[in-house]
Amino acid sequence: MSTSNHTPSGFQGISPSEFFYRNRQMAGFGNPVQSVYSTVRELVENSLDACEDACISPRVRVELKSASPEVLTIAVSDNGPGVPYQAVPAAFGKVLFGSKYDRRQRRGTFGLGVTMAILHGQITTDTPVLIRTKMSDQPGREFILLVDVKENEPIIEAENAINLTHPGTSVTIRLRGDLKRAAERVVDYLQLTTIASPHAVIDYVIENVKGSTGGWVKELPTPPSESKPHPRAADFELLRRLASKDESRSLHDFLVESFQQVGAKTSRKLLSFLALNPSLQVGSISRNDLSRLSTALRNFDGFAKPDSKCLSPIGKTSFLRAVRLSYDSAAASYASRGPSEWEGNPFIIEGVLAVGNTFSSSEIPTLFRFANRVPLLYDASEDVLTKTVKRVSWSRYGLRSPEPVALFLHLCSSRIPYKAAGKQSITTMATIETEAFSLLRELGRNLSKLAGKKERSVREAKKRREFSEMFGMVAKFSSELAGNDEVPPIHPLVEQLFEVNPDV
Amino acid sequence: MSTSNHTPSGFQGISPSEFFYRNRQMAGFGNPVQSVYSTVRELVENSLDACEDACISPRVRVELKSASPEVLTIAVSDNGPGVPYQAVPAAFGKVLFGSKYDRRQRRGTFGLGVTMAILHGQITTDTPVLIRTKMSDQPGREFILLVDVKENEPIIEAENAINLTHPGTSVTIRLRGDLKRAAERVVDYLQLTTIASPHAVIDYVIENVKGSTGGWVKELPTPPSESKPHPRAADFELLRRLASKDESRSLHDFLVESFQQVGAKTSRKLLSFLALNPSLQVGSISRNDLSRLSTALRNFDGFAKPDSKCLSPIGKTSFLRAVRLSYDSAAASYASRGPSEWEGNPFIIEGVLAVGNTFSSSEIPTLFRFANRVPLLYDASEDVLTKTVKRVSWSRYGLRSPEPVALFLHLCSSRIPYKAAGKQSITTMATIETEAFSLLRELGRNLSKLAGKKERSVREAKKRREFSEMFGMVAKFSSELAGNDEVPPIHPLVEQLFEVNPDV
Repeated sequence: MSTSNHTPSGFQGISPSEFFYRNRQMAGFGNPVQSVYSTVRELVENSLDACEDACISPRVRVELKSASPEVLTIAVSDNGPGVPYQAVPAAFGKVLFGSKYDRRQRRGTFGLGVTMAILHGQITTDTPVLIRTKMSDQPGREFILLVDVKENEPIIEAENAINLTHPGTSVTIRLRGDLKRAAERVVDYLQLTTIASPHAVIDYVIENVKGSTGGWVKELPTPPSESKPHPRAADFELLRRLASKDESRSLHDFLVESFQQVGAKTSRKLLSFLALNPSLQVGSISRNDLSRLSTALRNFDGFAKPDSKCLSPIGKTSFLRAVRLSYDSAAASYASRGPSEWEGNPFIIEGVLAVGNTFSSSEIPTLFRFANRVPLLYDASEDVLTKTVKRVSWSRYGLRSPEPVALFLHLCSSRIPYKAAGKQSITTMATIETEAFSLLRELGRNLSKLAGKKERSVREAKKRREFSEMFGMVAKFSSELAGNDEVPPIHPLVEQLFEVNPDV
Repeated sequence: MSTSNHTPSGFQGISPSEFFYRNRQMAGFGNPVQSVYSTVRELVENSLDACEDACISPRVRVELKSASPEVLTIAVSDNGPGVPYQAVPAAFGKVLFGSKYDRRQRRGTFGLGVTMAILHGQITTDTPVLIRTKMSDQPGREFILLVDVKENEPIIEAENAINLTHPGTSVTIRLRGDLKRAAERVVDYLQLTTIASPHAVIDYVIENVKGSTGGWVKELPTPPSESKPHPRAADFELLRRLASKDESRSLHDFLVESFQQVGAKTSRKLLSFLALNPSLQVGSISRNDLSRLSTALRNFDGFAKPDSKCLSPIGKTSFLRAVRLSYDSAAASYASRGPSEWEGNPFIIEGVLAVGNTFSSSEIPTLFRFANRVPLLYDASEDVLTKTVKRVSWSRYGLRSPEPVALFLHLCSSRIPYKAAGKQSITTMATIETEAFSLLRELGRNLSKLAGKKERSVREAKKRREFSEMFGMVAKFSSELAGNDEVPPIHPLVEQLFEVNPDV
């Protein structure tokens, strides 16, 4: 075997950043509205991932400000652990480079997002990105970076020590975009982000209008941990890579150590079925036998369910609470399916069906899609979740006349099969579709129970509103009598008094 | 400025082939049916591009054969000019490498397609690709290649001189896929391919069933030629690249020489508007002035229509003839819009509206989408063409009761804004949507004329069928009388006799 590396005339190679520069619509930067949304999204996802990796409850600040009718500045800062200074240039200025990939649920797809946002800003306004970051044990540092598109390398325009009081990272990008038309979508995105990450708080300022969302629950979810690959993921490429890690191991040890859900018993069964000697060194088996092994691992149907510790679903209590507090929904029901796997990638799908007058009425519930705690706002119609919702006969479950019902569906997986690098739409994979369908039927069966619940809840809400008004007045008068300018917050008390069990 | 290139711990870079290995559903290899279709498509597109670049009328042969229920072999061969032997390993075994990119209409997106198909085959069956190629002045050569996914480099397993009589290239890939379910879609794809490339002939064998399509017209279309960029494409990246080619030129010469549709007068007008001295050396102007120049080039609305010599629309006569012969449509109408541009990329959009009983009846015409002579069969609902067809009130144009009407829409551009690397769906760009809408309204206005045409045409078809049967019998008897076993072909004569003007 030999490798060839020279470039004959008439042919050329291009760098990954050049590819995405030429095809930026594939990464979500196809028009002035979507570019604003995608920039916010990539930066916010990065911040949330960074905080949670460090077990910090995320507090993210998002600022969007017009510089001219066509140009704006987007700044996102977080209270995360900061980025190791020597990693900043490549992590932000190089496509297909990032924090080490591992097999667990994350918001970002490896190595594309933030650099694409920076590249888009640079191409459209010729402005470098400004990154400020501080790690807890070090002084702050500021970077001004450009991307060398042809070489896919960061260009450091400036790097300075700066005074920052708290750890965290802030990124400022100037770009061409249509803030006016994008603003509403950005707010939707941020609010839905806190539905899927109810522990996170996001403060935002768009032009000069301030807002805040999130903090619906206090507990930070248990961070997902890396897991071994599931045997169904064993294509030849993976099998060869795993085998080459230590070729002196026996075939039996190799299987048990490399994969989840392969114990001693399963390994012996598989190898005897293939007539392979379990004590053979893995480095010594023929390519043909490795092929047979790969086929067997992918087709054997006796493996236990995949391990779900690499996943982080929102969970019943948090998901219901976030929906209830965000939408003032009268009643809601939760269900979940999995862990199952698609091509060896573990996944869980969970959903909330909610009734409430803030949702639009239709014969099919309004669908809010989420993947790995990220709301998906574009390209809904080709998405596996949308297609599955349309397959269900909602009228059979009592949704006969148009009713204000919404569905919040969350797919979490160690890998989301996005249709495009812009991460808006999920490819149809048979197992995902099957689990989604069965989840929807369960939620459908809960619809009628929700109807009764809804009526009770409307009465409850009315009572709460009336009490709240009266109590507010009492608080105000008492404060005035006591000579206090500030009225104490009454909402925590009201909520405590009227807390209803969010479960159906 | 300095560049940084080392990898801090906890971070990593991945190669482009590794990126697409991890995200192969983005490139059209998401499931066993689509993988078969995508493999055929990438190979056929490659063959057609190669033939037409060399002004050879394409004759392509496609063979699909099951090796087991889940594994099949796909072989595509052409009568093209062959691939320069030293370029074969990188062109087929390296992602983001290909024949030099130029600014003109082509089927393939640079550097992804065939290598992705090879990579998919390798990952799923561990089989290297077999490539045989012969250039006219050289003996044939055979390559057996694998892709080193981590390094994005070809691995040459074998390279041999072989005896091939005719120039051309054949590529054989073994892959996991569902041939049974993909077969019909592959035949649809091949037939639609010859609608958009009516000069090409495609012979196919699926399992043991043979078929052939195409050759609807004889003339090879004029190959598109490379054109200079349109000034609206002048983002900072492009402007800097163009400027750096020769920094000693005056600003005036730089503009006139670098862009299409910028003559001496336009250049002087632009520069005086920006208060820039036309005789300044382009290498000496400040970054800020280059920024202002880029903004001005993108926003100035006095440029002439873009040059269309980089485009190759199907054209009225060929498009109508291909639809008529393929679908036995009773009547059809053609229209075209452009050249226009999206972000500086020239495009033309053309369409045929056809009435015929082979189309399904609906209140909205059945839509067949094409981009750069390639039929698009997946992900229709998010496509700009689909969305625009839905925006038209077809009932206003007489499509009141469901009628068997089909629309063939072809977008050709020096760059197609595909939503994903799998090239199935076109992103909404404002100018494309506008031109498509106006094209559809023109086709709509022709609908009523088509109705009358249809009746005449049905009578005509009946006459032709009857004559054809009689004439066939006459030919058969005459041959027998003359002692000939073979009956001479009668179709060319019948067609010549009944040739109707395909225009409305």
